[in-house]
Amino acid sequence: MDEMTNVLADSLTRLRAARPLVHCLTNVVTVNDCANALLCVGASPVMATAIEEVETIARHADAVCVNIGTLDSTVVPSMIKAAQAASAAGVPVTLDPVGAGASAYRTETTRNLLETGAFALLRGNASEIRAVAGVSSATRGVDAAADENSEAALAENIEIARRLAAEYRLAVGVSGPVDILACGERLALVRNGHSFMPSVCGTGCMLSSVAAAFLGANRSRPFVAALGAFCAMGLAGEIAYRRLTDGEGPAAGRVRLLDALAGLDEKTLTKGARFEIL
Amino acid sequence: MDEMTNVLADSLTRLRAARPLVHCLTNVVTVNDCANALLCVGASPVMATAIEEVETIARHADAVCVNIGTLDSTVVPSMIKAAQAASAAGVPVTLDPVGAGASAYRTETTRNLLETGAFALLRGNASEIRAVAGVSSATRGVDAAADENSEAALAENIEIARRLAAEYRLAVGVSGPVDILACGERLALVRNGHSFMPSVCGTGCMLSSVAAAFLGANRSRPFVAALGAFCAMGLAGEIAYRRLTDGEGPAAGRVRLLDALAGLDEKTLTKGARFEIL
Amino acid sequence: MDEMTNVLADSLTRLRAARPLVHCLTNVVTVNDCANALLCVGASPVMATAIEEVETIARHADAVCVNIGTLDSTVVPSMIKAAQAASAAGVPVTLDPVGAGASAYRTETTRNLLETGAFALLRGNASEIRAVAGVSSATRGVDAAADENSEAALAENIEIARRLAAEYRLAVGVSGPVDILACGERLALVRNGHSFMPSVCGTGCMLSSVAAAFLGANRSRPFVAALGAFCAMGLAGEIAYRRLTDGEGPAAGRVRLLDALAGLDEKTLTKGARFEIL
Repeated sequence: MDEMTNVLADSLTRLRAARPLVHCLTNVVTVNDCANALLCVGASPVMATAIEEVETIARHADAVCVNIGTLDSTVVPSMIKAAQAASAAGVPVTLDPVGAGASAYRTETTRNLLETGAFALLRGNASEIRAVAGVSSATRGVDAAADENSEAALAENIEIARRLAAEYRLAVGVSGPVDILACGERLALVRNGHSFMPSVCGTGCMLSSVAAAFLGANRSRPFVAALGAFCAMGLAGEIAYRRLTDGEGPAAGRVRLLDALAGLDEKTLTKGARFEIL
Repeated sequence: MDEMTNVLADSLTRLRAARPLVHCLTNVVTVNDCANALLCVGASPVMATAIEEVETIARHADAVCVNIGTLDSTVVPSMIKAAQAASAAGVPVTLDPVGAGASAYRTETTRNLLETGAFALLRGNASEIRAVAGVSSATRGVDAAADENSEAALAENIEIARRLAAEYRLAVGVSGPVDILACGERLALVRNGHSFMPSVCGTGCMLSSVAAAFLGANRSRPFVAALGAFCAMGLAGEIAYRRLTDGEGPAAGRVRLLDALAGLDEKTLTKGARFEIL
Repeated sequence: MDEMTNVLADSLTRLRAARPLVHCLTNVVTVNDCANALLCVGASPVMATAIEEVETIARHADAVCVNIGTLDSTVVPSMIKAAQAASAAGVPVTLDPVGAGASAYRTETTRNLLETGAFALLRGNASEIRAVAGVSSATRGVDAAADENSEAALAENIEIARRLAAEYRLAVGVSGPVDILACGERLALVRNGHSFMPSVCGTGCMLSSVAAAFLGANRSRPFVAALGAFCAMGLAGEIAYRRLTDGEGPAAGRVRLLDALAGLDEKTLTKGARFEIL
């Protein structure tokens, strides 16, 4: 574990040194949060969805992050073009299937995107990942369902993550009280994070963007990169929560989360990361 | 009044217990604020405007909030479809006519939406509500005009609210230094709120979203639900203002407003609500 | 210099007195920041991009701000219509060429917009302005390139700003460690601002919006107006940085930046403005 922790810290060092350019095709709800999360973690964001430019920008980026949170028929072709152009250029692409399961349109669009084979990481909450896998859950809207928290659900979600990882040949990250990360034969559980985070809009989207940045700066090690992102964001949430003062809640928590991410160094990450490799 | 105050507190209790899913078709300026306001008040937001999915999502939501702040010809058909699907399923729909009066396009779109008969609550500032009613005022842009503050204007706006409420058979809320709420024969004036709130972008939009959440959790009592939302948001603004420290202004005020909304409990609402039923 | 400083203070007084209505056709990433920056500086924002209404709104506004940060083929015609309608009505129009150089689409769109002759101010970072002028630099994404900081680069960028100002007959503002402002024969360098500002998403977009507000309230003096905006925003950044407490970073910095802008008075501006007229 000590060795793995050092590798995690190294993934952050590489991110900060590379200042990866992350091209986001994302939703209008949390687009500003994603841009700020990228700046805070040490990356450089560029948001672009116009069909005229997405291939150029994706190809020259260090990573691409596709997020379907406010998808429509105009942006989906741009997402496919960007993902394919990036993939062809060796640029890792992350997919956040926001709200998969809330409508057939979202679930099917997610599958169509994955069918391109252009993605390196799929990250969502359990309801979304289960919907992509065709396993029912009580998804309503874009928030996670409550029944995700049981041990039985965790075991089932691990199997679903493994299955999707194999089927689409990518890393699969499932956010929850315990995060799951599956990639090929490798599996990790992450126990960082704080329960106030789901009450801040966009923590999932931010994590996907940050994960894209980690992947962009650690291309040869997608499992480690994604693990670094999960631990870093979760740890930033823990630090943010500890800094909340009287009367402060989710809105101050968001400000402190971003600032904790900006202030996160390798020593803090090494000391605070809580994960197990199964 | 004591009884009514208890009913208000009960409307908040119901909201927190139900955690209503609120489907927003809203503008890109304040969409993040609306999502966070919904999370803070205890609801679950889903933002979706794609024509392919709005009916499904609206039908399964507990409430829908339509906001025309950055309308265009693509999103208006989605708004109509969502409102009609929701209404047919018994889901209450709120309309925020942002900027009505600033262009004929906005005023006419608002009327076209209202003509569907699908709405349960229309909430705007006085300039907007007057524009919808065809009464001129000095609207420029999306902010309220200064002449709204006189007693004569208040009396006139009460009549306009009553008229629109009767014409379109819904509740009408008019935000201002004194808020007006008309619903059938019932009329309330609300004196919560603080003068710093109009200097924060999105307080009106947030109120409409929060009102949608109250309606979603209190379907049989739209008047009480809307009144609860007006009192809760206004009171959160008062609490936020009291928490501002030296050098803080509207931006810190927004953070504290959301956090005050998250921290608002029935006791505080009961004690702080300032309204009269006419 | 003392006289010029008084003129700057006067430009802020005029802005606050006029409360100019600023019509923004802007990107979805920072649209909320721009609206809040406008409210904080004392202006009134209206965001509108629908082709059905942009001419009406632009014509009745006091200033227009066009920002191509998330341009697409739908919004570009609206930008052209709004700029032309405003210009024909004597309303000053500002252009922020976000990401020019990151794709041919952005660079060419910027030039097409400028060719309309409708713009009074072009404001970007050095990479963007260089791209518009056809001078290469290391632009990747929407952030400024590092090599902008040398004295040689400053001298070169001054010449580029002068050339564009002459070619398109407008004021040209170039943000950087030292800001450049060229307008006809006049040239200013501004040394306000703080190095934390580029780590906050949207400080450039906010500056462009605020500059539009200054222009709208000081129509006969675009050079002074733009200079006022650069000094005011830079100074707000300095004040914000000084107010950061332990553990705070870019996210708290953004809140404090907006609040410093709201609290900025003529005395502080007069005392703190650091510029030279060449």
